[in-house]
Amino acid sequence: MSSPVTFVNVIDVDPSQQQTLIDILEEGTRNVISRRSGFVSSTVLAAVDRRRVVNIARWESIDAVKATQNDPAAAEYAQRAAAIAKPSPGIFTVEADFSA
Amino acid sequence: MSSPVTFVNVIDVDPSQQQTLIDILEEGTRNVISRRSGFVSSTVLAAVDRRRVVNIARWESIDAVKATQNDPAAAEYAQRAAAIAKPSPGIFTVEADFSA
Repeated sequence: MSSPVTFVNVIDVDPSQQQTLIDILEEGTRNVISRRSGFVSSTVLAAVDRRRVVNIARWESIDAVKATQNDPAAAEYAQRAAAIAKPSPGIFTVEADFSA
Repeated sequence: MSSPVTFVNVIDVDPSQQQTLIDILEEGTRNVISRRSGFVSSTVLAAVDRRRVVNIARWESIDAVKATQNDPAAAEYAQRAAAIAKPSPGIFTVEADFSA
């Protein structure tokens, strides 16, 4: 199977730590995630109330996601995020897309 | 202020109701949300484990989101979703975008 999948991580965070969390996600994506095989694109979204960050990453296949999760360099960034916030990651498929 | 914003609704759901929830979101987006002023685009994402749906909608401004939330037709779809699942909506800004 090599259907595209979307990794969505909903990360609840204390507002005082939101910017630090964003910095970790940006650094990890730039230095590690975006260089992995099968990476397509990703977006870091910050809640205006500062209590949540959502990280959305599109991949060519579920196997590419699993391989990345087993990469020690990627795991280090995931651990740094989990140390200051509460991640809830999952694998998703796109059910519908709408445009104006 | 008319900066673009992203509405993200993280909806936890019993796996037996995930498809019904997706159908409500698709119908509401097609019939109501996508026709509202200020709507840019949206995506419905379904968790592979069937326990979550994430609805992401991009808008031209926060005012467009607020006006939509006050639209009775939009509120009806939100109520139908809330009747069978646990929504956690919020307003976000894009902090970073990466592409392969």
